[in-house]
Amino acid sequence: MESIVIMAGGRGERFWPKSRAGKPKQFTDLTGKGSMLFLTYQRAAKMVDPDRIFVVTGQDYRDITRQNLPDLPEQNIIVEPEGRNTAPCIGLAAVILEHRFPGVTMVVVPADHLIKEEDLFVNTLKTAAELAGKTGGLVTLGIRPTRPETGYGYLRTGEEVPLGQGKAAYKVSSFVEKPDLQKAEQFLSEGGYLWNAGIFIWQVPVILNAFKNHLPDIYEGLLKIGASVGTPENMQVLADVYPSLQNISVDFGIMEKVDQVYTVPGEFSWDDVGSWRALERVFGTDINGNVLLGNVQALDSTNCIFDTCGRMVAAIGLEDLVVVETEDITFICPKDKTDRVRELIASLRSQKMEKYL
Amino acid sequence: MESIVIMAGGRGERFWPKSRAGKPKQFTDLTGKGSMLFLTYQRAAKMVDPDRIFVVTGQDYRDITRQNLPDLPEQNIIVEPEGRNTAPCIGLAAVILEHRFPGVTMVVVPADHLIKEEDLFVNTLKTAAELAGKTGGLVTLGIRPTRPETGYGYLRTGEEVPLGQGKAAYKVSSFVEKPDLQKAEQFLSEGGYLWNAGIFIWQVPVILNAFKNHLPDIYEGLLKIGASVGTPENMQVLADVYPSLQNISVDFGIMEKVDQVYTVPGEFSWDDVGSWRALERVFGTDINGNVLLGNVQALDSTNCIFDTCGRMVAAIGLEDLVVVETEDITFICPKDKTDRVRELIASLRSQKMEKYL
Repeated sequence: MESIVIMAGGRGERFWPKSRAGKPKQFTDLTGKGSMLFLTYQRAAKMVDPDRIFVVTGQDYRDITRQNLPDLPEQNIIVEPEGRNTAPCIGLAAVILEHRFPGVTMVVVPADHLIKEEDLFVNTLKTAAELAGKTGGLVTLGIRPTRPETGYGYLRTGEEVPLGQGKAAYKVSSFVEKPDLQKAEQFLSEGGYLWNAGIFIWQVPVILNAFKNHLPDIYEGLLKIGASVGTPENMQVLADVYPSLQNISVDFGIMEKVDQVYTVPGEFSWDDVGSWRALERVFGTDINGNVLLGNVQALDSTNCIFDTCGRMVAAIGLEDLVVVETEDITFICPKDKTDRVRELIASLRSQKMEKYL
Repeated sequence: MESIVIMAGGRGERFWPKSRAGKPKQFTDLTGKGSMLFLTYQRAAKMVDPDRIFVVTGQDYRDITRQNLPDLPEQNIIVEPEGRNTAPCIGLAAVILEHRFPGVTMVVVPADHLIKEEDLFVNTLKTAAELAGKTGGLVTLGIRPTRPETGYGYLRTGEEVPLGQGKAAYKVSSFVEKPDLQKAEQFLSEGGYLWNAGIFIWQVPVILNAFKNHLPDIYEGLLKIGASVGTPENMQVLADVYPSLQNISVDFGIMEKVDQVYTVPGEFSWDDVGSWRALERVFGTDINGNVLLGNVQALDSTNCIFDTCGRMVAAIGLEDLVVVETEDITFICPKDKTDRVRELIASLRSQKMEKYL
């Protein structure tokens, strides 16, 4: 049986003020069906037993993780002493898994993605796990693009790897950074490109070996941490070593450098909910192109996203705006400027307005 | 001594949601110094004793009027059985004044204007009252225009009436409807035009005679009401007669038709606070042209009006928007579309969402 690692340490600043420092995006209930982390856990639990599910998160989110996932064994919450990038996060999970389930196949999923067809998702992961076992390579899920999305990275597919029953995986010939619209349209019309979903499958010894080859400094730190797992010194070693590990993504640090990388195309609908526009896809729009969540009165307004938490938002003559209301903050911003929320958050921080972060 | 009638029956829909059905504009505290009605009463009390001050308002606003004006004798609150226009309102006050202070000079002021130099205002009213006594005419204050305002009506001044000490009043040669910008600019450069502030001064017998000549149907109703003042039947007569009186403004029904109309120029700064833009004049704007009232974080935003009541409004990249936040409503609208708030209110009414009116 595989083991699934849910990465739940993100700060979710892009979704401020719905996502807050004390309760980032992965802990929010976007769909009304439960927090994104809870939904991710539920999907994982369709594939493996709860003791095989691990959540990596930050010190500040240990309690909220337990509240979100009462069925998760407490020792399966892996706490990062401080937030790093995906490479250290995955390495940390790998050495802990190697201690608990030596040689296990590890599935890594972000905690803040939406996936509709859960059985299809689980089956795709199983296929990927088999492929990882058979090839001894690194496997990533690739999502068949349905629009010329400029917000995702892409995988360029190479040599086909038959999976039987007419299905196929591919070797990844290259990783492509977020394209501009023209390129994204080209990818869509050419074919041979998949969205990089950031969902990985590999055997733990394989990924640790990849760390050794391509991120040796991190690997050395991971060895120290790994040696302390299960001992009283673990917390101290983690606190000493982890913050010094290089801040680098697993894509950039490993995936792009390894030869044996495969992708299994996923046919389920997937959304990384990476920007407010994702709400248009998740909830659909009315005849005027508006997303209307909560108590909204919109007169003569088009292509806006309204997300309110109880009080009324009354709008007249608005276009292409995002309006998000939480208990204590109303956020208003044109759709094409929402990236600048980081500047706003930085400004609040410099004004010592922590309660609004 | 004169008597001052404060008209406080307006619904203030233009300032929704800050102005609400249960607490219209005149009862709101716009400046932090007290409700507009309270400030109006304070100005009146600089000129006359409290028992000479009358407030005309609606049934629903009797209690809030008493709360706003604890020093006002209760019998000086004149309650309209239902809201009419300024002609019936002024006629009603006139017959009540004629009962209480026969032959008195009556000053009519709206409850929802802002006036800065209060002593100058009072002195101007005294001058106007003298003029009304001397000429037996109808007097209206005229405000010297300081900008090509398209939101006000104008008075065209005619023959000069010397007041002594180098000062002058004028006969009003015509009333001019709200002009377009070109005309407003012309008025300003030509001179000879004053803003019609809706502040009137006349002897009660004179205005009643004007009703008799120009609005005989209303006059007949007023006679019936006047005959009942001080009797146990008064309330009943008022309830029977008042709602049937013609819905017409005193400007249109009387002022424009009477020959003996004078205007005394007021040199005090005056604002009818007729739209959200008035907040720019009242509070001034920051370097980006924004009005920032309350808890506002505005990044890269220009020429907006923000008025919040405690929670934070965080804005990025907004232009020319009005953003008003109350306890239960957030209102967002481009400055040039705020007139359409009436449509929004009508829509709420048709949806039976009374609590938001």
